[in-house]
Parts: sequence; C-alpha cells; structure tokens
Amino acid sequence: MAGCGEILYGARIADGFWSAFRDTVVREGIPYQWRALNDAIDDAEPSYCMRNFRVAAGKEPGGFGGCVFQDSDVAKWLEGVAYSLRWHPDPELEAVADGAIQTVIEAQQPDGYMDTYYIINGLDRRWTNLKDNHELYVAGHMIEAAVAYYRATGKRPLLDAVTRLVDHIDSAIGPDAGKLRGYPGHPVIEMALMRLYGITGDEKHLRLAEYFVRQRGQSPLYFEEEDARNKNEFYWKNSPFRYQYYQAGRPFLAQKDAEGHAVRAMYLYSGAADVARATGDAALAEACRQLWRSTVRRRMYVTGAIGSSEHGESFTFDYDLPNDTVYGETCAAIGLVFFARRMLALEAKGEYADVMERALYNGVISGMQLDGKRFFYVNPLEVVPLACEKDHNKRHVKPQRQKWFGCACCPPNIIRLLASLEDYIYSQDGDSVYAHLYVGGSVDFEIAGARVGLKVDTNYPWDGEIAVTVDARRPVSFTLNLRVPGWCRSYALRVDGAAVEASPVDGYIAVRREWKPGEKVVLRLDMPVALARANPHVREDAGKRAVTRGPLVYCLEAADNGPDLHMAMLHGAKPEDFEVVWRPDKLGGIVELRCEGLRETDAGWNDALYSADAAVQTQRAALTFIPYYSWANRELGEMRVWVRE
Amino acid sequence: MAGCGEILYGARIADGFWSAFRDTVVREGIPYQWRALNDAIDDAEPSYCMRNFRVAAGKEPGGFGGCVFQDSDVAKWLEGVAYSLRWHPDPELEAVADGAIQTVIEAQQPDGYMDTYYIINGLDRRWTNLKDNHELYVAGHMIEAAVAYYRATGKRPLLDAVTRLVDHIDSAIGPDAGKLRGYPGHPVIEMALMRLYGITGDEKHLRLAEYFVRQRGQSPLYFEEEDARNKNEFYWKNSPFRYQYYQAGRPFLAQKDAEGHAVRAMYLYSGAADVARATGDAALAEACRQLWRSTVRRRMYVTGAIGSSEHGESFTFDYDLPNDTVYGETCAAIGLVFFARRMLALEAKGEYADVMERALYNGVISGMQLDGKRFFYVNPLEVVPLACEKDHNKRHVKPQRQKWFGCACCPPNIIRLLASLEDYIYSQDGDSVYAHLYVGGSVDFEIAGARVGLKVDTNYPWDGEIAVTVDARRPVSFTLNLRVPGWCRSYALRVDGAAVEASPVDGYIAVRREWKPGEKVVLRLDMPVALARANPHVREDAGKRAVTRGPLVYCLEAADNGPDLHMAMLHGAKPEDFEVVWRPDKLGGIVELRCEGLRETDAGWNDALYSADAAVQTQRAALTFIPYYSWANRELGEMRVWVRE
Repeated sequence: MAGCGEILYGARIADGFWSAFRDTVVREGIPYQWRALNDAIDDAEPSYCMRNFRVAAGKEPGGFGGCVFQDSDVAKWLEGVAYSLRWHPDPELEAVADGAIQTVIEAQQPDGYMDTYYIINGLDRRWTNLKDNHELYVAGHMIEAAVAYYRATGKRPLLDAVTRLVDHIDSAIGPDAGKLRGYPGHPVIEMALMRLYGITGDEKHLRLAEYFVRQRGQSPLYFEEEDARNKNEFYWKNSPFRYQYYQAGRPFLAQKDAEGHAVRAMYLYSGAADVARATGDAALAEACRQLWRSTVRRRMYVTGAIGSSEHGESFTFDYDLPNDTVYGETCAAIGLVFFARRMLALEAKGEYADVMERALYNGVISGMQLDGKRFFYVNPLEVVPLACEKDHNKRHVKPQRQKWFGCACCPPNIIRLLASLEDYIYSQDGDSVYAHLYVGGSVDFEIAGARVGLKVDTNYPWDGEIAVTVDARRPVSFTLNLRVPGWCRSYALRVDGAAVEASPVDGYIAVRREWKPGEKVVLRLDMPVALARANPHVREDAGKRAVTRGPLVYCLEAADNGPDLHMAMLHGAKPEDFEVVWRPDKLGGIVELRCEGLRETDAGWNDALYSADAAVQTQRAALTFIPYYSWANRELGEMRVWVRE
Repeated sequence: MAGCGEILYGARIADGFWSAFRDTVVREGIPYQWRALNDAIDDAEPSYCMRNFRVAAGKEPGGFGGCVFQDSDVAKWLEGVAYSLRWHPDPELEAVADGAIQTVIEAQQPDGYMDTYYIINGLDRRWTNLKDNHELYVAGHMIEAAVAYYRATGKRPLLDAVTRLVDHIDSAIGPDAGKLRGYPGHPVIEMALMRLYGITGDEKHLRLAEYFVRQRGQSPLYFEEEDARNKNEFYWKNSPFRYQYYQAGRPFLAQKDAEGHAVRAMYLYSGAADVARATGDAALAEACRQLWRSTVRRRMYVTGAIGSSEHGESFTFDYDLPNDTVYGETCAAIGLVFFARRMLALEAKGEYADVMERALYNGVISGMQLDGKRFFYVNPLEVVPLACEKDHNKRHVKPQRQKWFGCACCPPNIIRLLASLEDYIYSQDGDSVYAHLYVGGSVDFEIAGARVGLKVDTNYPWDGEIAVTVDARRPVSFTLNLRVPGWCRSYALRVDGAAVEASPVDGYIAVRREWKPGEKVVLRLDMPVALARANPHVREDAGKRAVTRGPLVYCLEAADNGPDLHMAMLHGAKPEDFEVVWRPDKLGGIVELRCEGLRETDAGWNDALYSADAAVQTQRAALTFIPYYSWANRELGEMRVWVRE
C-alpha cells in the first residue's frame, strides 16, 4: 500500500494549544539549555558539553567531562535551534549557533572523526566499544543537527563536516574486509543517515543505514567479539533481555516483540522504516509492522508511554503495564512519534497517526512543565508521592518535574520535537495532500506547478471542529486527505457549506475535487468524553477506566480531588454524565471534565486492617479530571489515570 | 493487665494438621540440613558451616567459608534438633548433635569468644563491626540452641559454653567505662539472653538484654562512631530507612512505626517484650504495644506476612502492601509469631493470639513445601511466573520453592519453629490455664500440687469443634481460658454436655469450676467462609476480597483455575454461596472452597489494547480456592489471594 508521501516542510503553526508549548521552547528551553551546555547554571552540575569541544579542539586545557555521549546534547540543541529558526527567526541565536558549530568543527579530526570523549581520552581506543560508548549515537545526532541546520539556514559547514564524518565511519565500519562489522549500541544514526541521504542522494548514506539495520544481531555477535577483544564489561549479562537491550539479541528481521531499551528500540525501528521505504524491501517493511503491532497493541500505555520497567529502561512482556512502577521515558514516547511518523510514510494508515497523536498529546508533553522550566524523565500513570520516597521500586518515579538531569537526554529531545512539530502535520504524495494532525496554522505546497495553500483554523484538542481554507490563485484539483482519528465515533463534513457524505478509508477521508480559491472544508469531529478500558489481559487496569476526550487522556490529581485517589470510583458514570468545562484560567487553559462519582471512606474501620464484616462505605464525590499532560503543575500530590469503575 | 503466664513446656501434639508438618521436619528437614551443614548436598554450593568450626578449632586447615553469620545455621539446626528430641526421641540424632556441640565448643576461645568468622580471619578485628558482621547475632542463636538443648536433654556443655560467651560479651560491651557502647546490628541476642535468664536467673543476663534494647539508637550513634573508627561501609546510607534498617535510627522508646528490616524489627520487639515483662517497665511495654499496632494494623499482609519491600527486606509505609512485589520473608512471619507470643505473655489479649495464628497458618508454613524439601524465602500474595522472569521488580519473587539458599536463614527457622510448636499452644498463670491455639494433643500442668492433664481433640483448622477432656485423679479447681479467635462470629460452649453461656473477655472465654476427672468441654467455633476486605487505605486491595475460612487464608491457583487470575471475579458471591469440600486426596488433605464467579474474557478485543467501546465480556466460571499455605505444590502457574469483587 502507498505511503503518505513526503513531509511538507515549512508549515506554519498558529495554534491555541501548541503555540504556547513552542513559545516556551524559544523563550525558556533553548536559552536555558545553551547555558547548561556552557556550565552557566548556578545550581546545577556542570555539563562540560561545550568545554569538551574546546578541549578537543586544543583551545582549552582540561579533561573530558560528563557522560560518554555528552556531545549529543550539543547536537540536539543545534537541531532544536535549527527548527526554531524556521518559524522564529533570531539572528542573535543563529550567530550563537554558528559559533557553536564552528567550535564543533574545530574539534573534528583530519580524518573526519568527531567525538570529544575519544579525541580527549585517546583516539587509539576509538571504535573499541560500539556497544556502550555511543560514538555512533553521537555521530547520529550530529548528522541530524547538520541536516536540520542546513535545511533551516542553507548553511553547509556542519553538513560538510558530518559528511566527512560519515565517510570516516564508512571507512572503519561495514561489511567489507578489514572493516569492523559493528553497529551502534544505541541506534539513531540509521534515521540520521536517511535524513542525510534525503539531502545528498548519496547511495553510500543509504547503504550504511541499511547495513546498520541489517547487521545487528547477526551471528557471530559483534558485541560479544568486541567485548572479548577489548575486555569490555557486559552490564546486562544477567538481565532478562541481555543483548536485546541494545536491540542486538537477534537480527532485525527475526525480532518479533518490542524488547530491551525502549528508546533504542524506537530509534532503530524508525531507521528501519526509513530504510524499508527507501529500498522498497517488503520483508523489512513487514518486520517493522510486526514490531509496531507488538509495541502499540501489547506494550504501550494509554498515554503513549512505553517502557514498563526502570531496569534497562525497557519493555517487559505482553500486557505488562504497571502504572506506578512504569518507566515511560519522555524520550521513548518521542521515539514512538518518530516511528509512527515513519510508518505513516511507509503506508498511509490512520493507526499510525492515531498513535503519533496519542503520544504527542499525552506521554510526550507530560515530560515538560507548562512553563518549560522543568522536565520529567519518567512519566508515570499513577503516583503516590510517599511511595516515591519510601518504596525502592518507585524511586525512579518523581512526583514533580526536575530542573535538569545528569543524563539530560529528555529535555533537548522534547525541545527538538516541539520545535519541529510542523513536520509531523502534513504530507504530500503527488496530488494527494494529507492532514495527519489538526493544528491551527497553514501550509503551502505545489500541485501541477501551482502554489496552493491550506489554512487551518481549529480549537483542537479542546473541540473537534477543523476548518480548512484553500488558498490558491486559480482552481486546482487535488485530493485532501483528512484524518478521522481512531477515537472519533461520529463526524460531519461540509465542503463549501454543503454536507458531504464521506467514509474514511484507512483512517482518512479523501476529498477529491477541483478546489476554488477560498473554498472551505469544515470537518466536525464529535468529541464526547470516552471511558477507555484496557484489554482484559492488562492486569493493572482490570476493573478500571481511563477518562479521555478526543486525543487527550485525563487524570485525577490530588489538587482537585484530595489524596487517596484509589478510593475514587466512577460508579457507573457514563460519558454523557460528565460536565465539559472550559477553564481558561487553569493550567494554561484546559477543558476540565467533571462527574459525580463515589469515594470509598474509612468510616467504621477505626484501626482495623482486615475485616470480613466491614461493608464498603462510600460517599458521593465530585471528581474533577484534568488532561494528563498538565499534571504536576501545582502542589505536590497524588495522580492517577486509571480510575476504578 | 495480666499476661497469660508461663509457657507450658512439654505439651504433646497429635494433630491431623500439624503432625504432618512436624513429621517432615524430622524426616526431611533435620537430616537434609545436617547434610547441608556438612557440605554433603551434591547439587548445592557448600555451606562450610561445620567445616568453619573445625577450622576454627584448629582441627582442619582452610579459610572461612560462607556468610559472616554462617555459624548461626549450626545453632538453628541444634535448636531444632533439641526441640524435636522432646517429642521424637532419636538417640542417633542426639549423638550427632552432641558431636556437633563438641566441635562448636572446641572452637570456643579461652576467653569465651565464639565466632568462627573472626577466629579464622583474625581475632584482632572482632567487635569492630557490630553493625554488619553479626557476631552478637550468631551468639544469640547459639544461646537459643544451648537453652533448648539443655531443656530437652538436660546436657550442660553448650549451656556452659554460651554462659562463658555471655561473660565475655559482657566484659567487652556495655555501658561501663572501657567497654564498647555497642549493640547488635541484627537483634536476636535480646530474646536469647532472656531465655538464658529464664534458666540461670542471673541478673547479668537480664541486664545485658535490657542494655541491648535500650542502648540502640541512643545519641551519639554507636554505629556512626564504629563506622568512622573502623572505616566500615554504610550500605544503606541513601536508603529511606538508613539506621532504622538495623533498628537503630532512634532509641526503642522513640520508635513509633515498624520500620527497616522486618526480621530485625520482630526479633528486637520480641526481646523488648521479654524485657518489659521481666522488669515490669510500663514505658517499655507501651513502646512494644505501639510497635505492635504499627505492625499489625497498618503494615501486615492478610497472610501475616510482613516486609513490603525487597529493598532492605523492609517495611515501607502505612497501608503500603503490594501483593506482587512484597517481600514477606518466611523469617519475618516467624518473627511476628515470636513477637505475638511475647505480647501475649505481657498481656493475655486475643489480638496477639489472632496474629500469631494468622501468621502460623498462612505466611509461615507457606514457606515450606508440603514434602518439606523446598522453601520460600519470599511469600508473595500474587504471582505471575512470567513477571518473576521479566520484571526486575519481581526478581526476588520465586514462583516455586527453592531447594536451599545461599543465605539459608528461612529453612532452619521454619524447622525450629515447627519443632517447638507445642510451646505456643498453652500457658499457665497460677490456677489459670490458657489454650491459645487449637491443636490436637495434650498437656500436663500442676494446680495446687495436683497433676492435671488436658487432652484436646479437634479437626482444626478444617472444622471448628474442639473437645478438651480433663485428666485428673481428683476434682480440681482451675480456670480454663479458651480463645475465641477474632475471625469467629458465633460459637457454642458445652461443659460436661450442658450448654454454657459465656462471653469472651479480651478474646478468651474463662471457664472456672471444679473440674471432675474426665470432664469434657466442647467449644464449637462456627467456621463459615468469610470474605475479607482490606482497610480502604490499602491501595493494592481496593475492590478486592480475600477468601478465608477459620484461620486460613485462601487463594486461587492456576492449577485449578487456569491463568489470568486477575480476570476472575467473585461477582457478589456471598460466603454462604461457597461449597466447602473436604479433599483428603488433594495437597495433603485440604478443605477446598468453591464458588461460582465470573471470568472476564477477551472476546471481541481481537488485537486492541484500549477501547472505549468494548463492553466487559464475562462468562460464568467455577472458582476453586485452596489454602494459601498449600500453593505452589503443583505445576508452575499463577496464584492470587486478593480476588476482584
């Protein structure tokens, strides 16, 4: 089946929901992170990021500081900056970024190698621990930064630098005799090379990406050989996932379940989907589908969070989705967005966009405080603050967002995704244009030589009416594919004021016609409250419901409902019993959902712990639900997504 | 209020329920453990236990092997043997034990010191790490063994040896100038010294026990000083409980909640209760009551298991009782039995006996396979075997009992408790005799110079009828206190065939009369099925019930009910809807409980993970419950105590 075509770069976002998030990115995130990269945050450990590059370039004395993958923070920052410059030009920021790029390039070695950890600590040890030492991961992020910066500014220095880096990698690693038959312990370079290939068209870039996808897990196992040769440690030796932590327990085509480190999984799957699309390899595409199904049909939280276990930040097993000990790393939900977007490119099916939307509106943006200043690494679906303190199994779960992290992967990742959100909304395949997400703004494209624009007005996700106005100089024929989200049970379509009957195929309504300038399509997605159940195999959600409305998953928070949220029950409240209230003053503006439920009380229990005589005592209780992403923006307290029926 | 008096030693057990457990102790447990102590188990790591004593005695070359507290396994074995010799005389076994004692004594140092770890590794380091190196713990167990062996056989060598050991300890540790103001990191010596005091009447033994109870947690903190002085590690530095792991975070009288390592807590509380009783110190008794309430009213599982977290084998916080990640160490439930028995001695209240019974019939004996050959360290209330394998948070939970453990504390502990079960049944306070537990057998005591016997016939816990026959030469007046368990809602008492109206006071019916020889009391405790709820503050049990009958907690097991036990629901089944079936052929003979409930099915879900449309599909399902203690005696599979309503 056909994919959804190419990303329509250059879309503009002017949206009641997303613009606020994106404003915090340019106002708070990018400047704060630049200070972090330069060790200029007073109450935080130094990151050593920019200093490492200066030391590696011989411009400053000192040793290497930070994690082995510390360079990637610089790359992710540059990538985020690049995206932001597209919609928020800032010559001052661009000059800073140019300077940073200059420093990065100065650290590059004559042979093209770039990784300050090894440049500073000794190049003789480079490529001796692909499994754990992240050289190819850092390279991948630097390539992504270079591509983004080139696309945004047209400036080539970093692009040229990473092209030389890729040449160097290609000379050292690969299937040919005399090269290391290795691959990255942490994928990302696969996606990055495919982005680079999208610009260079250089088959070498495609070939290397494909090699990385196909070689991992092949026997004899490179990581085993590498460990033996270089006396490396194998930290996960006694874990249930072992080499699958690195997505290298078996060849890609033999992987049936989403296993191991969730971020690595998503990044690899994303790269593989890119390669499958570029090569047209059906077996690879089918392997991607298989891993997609495993991920989203058996191992994903209702918020789009993935990674059930803190141990190895990993998947566990089918339907094992504990809400309180979940890992649900922000980066993993972001990775799921990457994967979904690429599956959509492989085949235009609404299921992919549904998951992309689910993760975006819930498990991704829950990672950032509304003011853009604090971040979650772990995104739980159920929190009791005292348990985070007293129960070792929940020590990774923080009841409030943190300022920054020693391993600061999530904040820059969320920044670069939000800054490039427009790339996830539209795509074009010939004379077919797709709207995958509904975000206020506009996009331009070309149909048969004519420049066409679409202007989108919507209050999504707070209501489901989306008005799309065609902007063109003359009538032009094309198909406008409007997604009907999987959560939507009824909708109405009006074209130029007239009701049109249309049924979605694979999740999209295709409106094909000759569009006149100014013509307007209005899609009204009915957006009632819905009470989700989890598949009965999910032990932790048995007898519980998740309150949702449109793409948003809701939760109970103590600030509205008091503590002991496990005592709250919907008590048969039906979707239509909920009050839907727009609260412009609350949490940056939210639709709040209210219903009358029940609350168990401890009346009559006194000091007893078990009793066969005690009846369940309940009282009527007003329950107030807020969007999950907005939790933990008020005082410390409990939170719960899955509520007893 | 008055206690329940002194233990009536010498009771005899001939019981349909307990005799089988005790037979496995002499048939399997004691011989197997002796082989383990002597490294004669083919497929197990050597224990080094007896070898360490021979090496320490200079009779064999070699180093120290095993854990730092390895000697305690020998002590616990000797204690178990001693108890068994009281009711299962075995001259051959006694000779073996005499030989082992001889070896132990040969290792004792001229100054009385006994601990093979330091004797072998260097006496200059002794008493440098009371916090972690268990010298006083080992001493405590050796004292317990010596007292038991002396009581059982009248033989003094080990008793004399430990008396010299205590003299040595008293010379090195204590409040006086020049002594270390230390105390054990792992309590047990407190209880042990009180037992020794019960034989010797030597005030020094009481004083030392009292010192250990009162000194811990006093400022300046001995363990901090000791760590600094001897450069010891503090492993729990960053844990939530820190020094409370060792029960030394604050002075005993200032401890309000059951915290830290659950076994250490129970052993300390038990010793403190002994001291409170012996000294009559009201503040100490009140502190024991406070810790009792914290333990059993807010931090105990329905099975009598304690210790919610594997991390530090510890308590967590009030009402935090996860069923699947629970620790619930067998030793901790045994410790709870010790504590309960001592609180009962402090004050004759049924609440203590209720908890003692709850732990004994459930969380203690669940630790041993029915054939006595395998043991649980951890006693979960909910098990999914795949989760034990794939979820790191449940890696300590084993779905099947293990043969032995590297740290083999639980198997010998359960053996010594079962071998001495008769000491927990009866007590006497002047002319008042108590029956705390109902176990078939007999006991003798003296009232006003007359020898009186009680013979108990019962099929408890399978039914609630208990017949007590008085055996005396002439009429004799005394009060027979019969416990009415907390679980019992109705009962009937007949004395000499005539119905007698009686109300329990503090859990005991006091029948005072002049008893004629052969007179019989029949107490019929009605024993219907009961469906327990947990206090509404217990998050993990919300909306669930535990099926119980009499003292037994029941569970669902996959062998009877198939997998996915979280899909099973009682669906409003009432106690009277249950079928109560005696199954002599099953699991050593059990009363099985059956009801018709519901089972959720995944019909209609296909491959979906979340759905707002799917109705809960159920089908009627026969649910079969077995006593919790008997789980995991068949094929590998799920188990669950708390079942959805």
